[in-house]
Amino acid sequence: MNVLVINCGSSSFKYQLIDMSREAVLSSGLVERIGEAHGSLSHKVAPGTDKESVFRREQPFPDHTAGLNAVMELLVDPERGVISSLKDINAVGHRVVMGGEDIRASCLMGEKEKAAVSRLSALAPLHNPANLQGIEVAQSLLPHAPSVGVFDTEFHASLPPKAFMYALPYSLYEEQRIRRYGFHGTSHRFVARSGARLLDKDPDFFNAITCHLGNGCSITAVENGASVETSMGLTPLEGVIMGTRCGNIDPAILLFLGRNGNLDFPVLDSLLNKESGLKGICGLNDMRDIHAARARGEARAQLAFDMFCHGIRKYIGAYCAILGRLDALIFTAGIGENDDQVRAAVCADLGILGIAVDPARNAMRSGRPRAISPETSPVAVLVVPTNEELAIAQETVAVLAAGR
Amino acid sequence: MNVLVINCGSSSFKYQLIDMSREAVLSSGLVERIGEAHGSLSHKVAPGTDKESVFRREQPFPDHTAGLNAVMELLVDPERGVISSLKDINAVGHRVVMGGEDIRASCLMGEKEKAAVSRLSALAPLHNPANLQGIEVAQSLLPHAPSVGVFDTEFHASLPPKAFMYALPYSLYEEQRIRRYGFHGTSHRFVARSGARLLDKDPDFFNAITCHLGNGCSITAVENGASVETSMGLTPLEGVIMGTRCGNIDPAILLFLGRNGNLDFPVLDSLLNKESGLKGICGLNDMRDIHAARARGEARAQLAFDMFCHGIRKYIGAYCAILGRLDALIFTAGIGENDDQVRAAVCADLGILGIAVDPARNAMRSGRPRAISPETSPVAVLVVPTNEELAIAQETVAVLAAGR
Repeated sequence: MNVLVINCGSSSFKYQLIDMSREAVLSSGLVERIGEAHGSLSHKVAPGTDKESVFRREQPFPDHTAGLNAVMELLVDPERGVISSLKDINAVGHRVVMGGEDIRASCLMGEKEKAAVSRLSALAPLHNPANLQGIEVAQSLLPHAPSVGVFDTEFHASLPPKAFMYALPYSLYEEQRIRRYGFHGTSHRFVARSGARLLDKDPDFFNAITCHLGNGCSITAVENGASVETSMGLTPLEGVIMGTRCGNIDPAILLFLGRNGNLDFPVLDSLLNKESGLKGICGLNDMRDIHAARARGEARAQLAFDMFCHGIRKYIGAYCAILGRLDALIFTAGIGENDDQVRAAVCADLGILGIAVDPARNAMRSGRPRAISPETSPVAVLVVPTNEELAIAQETVAVLAAGR
Repeated sequence: MNVLVINCGSSSFKYQLIDMSREAVLSSGLVERIGEAHGSLSHKVAPGTDKESVFRREQPFPDHTAGLNAVMELLVDPERGVISSLKDINAVGHRVVMGGEDIRASCLMGEKEKAAVSRLSALAPLHNPANLQGIEVAQSLLPHAPSVGVFDTEFHASLPPKAFMYALPYSLYEEQRIRRYGFHGTSHRFVARSGARLLDKDPDFFNAITCHLGNGCSITAVENGASVETSMGLTPLEGVIMGTRCGNIDPAILLFLGRNGNLDFPVLDSLLNKESGLKGICGLNDMRDIHAARARGEARAQLAFDMFCHGIRKYIGAYCAILGRLDALIFTAGIGENDDQVRAAVCADLGILGIAVDPARNAMRSGRPRAISPETSPVAVLVVPTNEELAIAQETVAVLAAGR
């Protein structure tokens, strides 16, 4: 069974065609600058293997349909194609950001479900309309292939009210559904399950703290395999410090800036989402650049690093208190998988929580799930590469098998 | 030595006259509705003793000077007075909310210091102008008595940058001093020192988490006697859920409400500070009323209680991770001192942190500092009544002794 996974943004989309019989990526790529004068398509065949080949094309793509059509042509191209006919695409798995309280599990995207995604655009105005567009385009170009929506929020549907409610007037929840939804759920679930497997534990009796540290960062408390707390909230702005997002701040700072600085909401939105975080502190939003600047002795870069790790440590402690018992602390995503300096600083002096890192294991680079804690440590510290596309494809297969 | 302690608000002030030779309150009281048509004065002699007497007077007080004058008259009244002459007031200790980065320790309030308090009003517009007014009035009515300012923020002056900086554009710190200041510092310091004394430990090598849970709530991590993290931030809105304040929320909720709900900054300010917190969730902002409603089976009151305790547990875990070693968890202020249900729920299942509560000890009511953890517990859980007025008087004496 071949599943086409689509992650659709407003002017771009990423895709992977995965042969699920052996969980192998046949092809992957990215279409960018849709609707602009100069679009681009980057397409890989057999990515990550000895036979990988890359194909790039610069051309305008007036809309998402044109972009996906170009991808289809490449997939069945007599020369570089990986399938002989579009019929060989058996299903399409779509990443959708916001499922709200209406959609609590991956599902076939029928009219009712699409209407829900559209309605939930109020809560995710940057993402849901684009995600929906991807679904519509795929359904029109691949009418034979069922479309499954896999939602960023669904893993967090198990949050109890004490974790998902804000202490705001209750009517804001009743009338506008303002609450914590959480994001990166597909990744948190994937690495929690992988971590349990690595440790040979039952995923349904596994307690973990999963740290998804990439350009966006979120941390989740997993109890008996289910998400019970997560750092992102109504939006992906809340939580730990990110590349350009501020994470947690005193909400009164917005009132202060609005009144004293005369900043309006669109300006504040851009300030907090695009000019803050690591970039706001030191001007750099890539942790590798920050390490280089720290090595040059730049104090502001050191501060950004210290603040980033300090914030993560606070979440780890907080979630330990919630879980009561911790089997594993799991790092994933760009920084989590590759940055041993961040992992070392985050885990330093956490003996009170049973957490320790073995320096040699931590320093070793690998693309495979692995433990970096000492053999005798009460809590396993793991590095588990995330693979959201594979996770979406797996969910897609599961939905079809269950006939959901 | 007699110290008059004044805590001055914009239309009211509280006071205590304390004989520091035996730390005994000679008199205490409250003047309210200053500047309104119907003011009131409530004055106690020998409060909390067998000889306590209360005197109430309803009369207009056109300004703070009139209010303080009325108090002075009562203090030296031939019949019910506690001193024979105003000369027996040897010093005045003032609570001041915001010392910012300029004033990092209690100090004599000369012209330079008063100018700083005035300048810092931008960061504490509701408090600093009123605090300053109290200082001016006391200095004009008691010119012989030195005035000492004791600042809510000063105990938190020891916060490291990684704890006090927000991940916002650095210029907001450089130009507008937007950072975490923290509040309730006088109380956190007082109970941390009292807790160390109770456990017979050196306060300068004492690690504690102090939970000031009253109408306002804040939690502080104390390392070697110094504040290293605290839950309130630029303003007292940040942190745990309070009576009517929301505490931590996704900052993007303000952007959402501003854009989708067309709420402006003054409306949002009032919403987050006065209509949120426990009151927002269940309509009640007094924990005693919430317990009564829970007992009646009201789900919303139970939710408010659960959210309140859940948030405090997260801070306790977070601060354990920061401190690395915890000697004591300390509860203080109205809820912290008197509410065994909150203490029990906050400490439940925290064995992972070495925290446990003995039910019988917890249920016992007392006005004295005491341990409520089992004898063998690795972390002492303490209830320590706070006494901000006494703390201010002690600081006042210390400043005068040191000639600061």
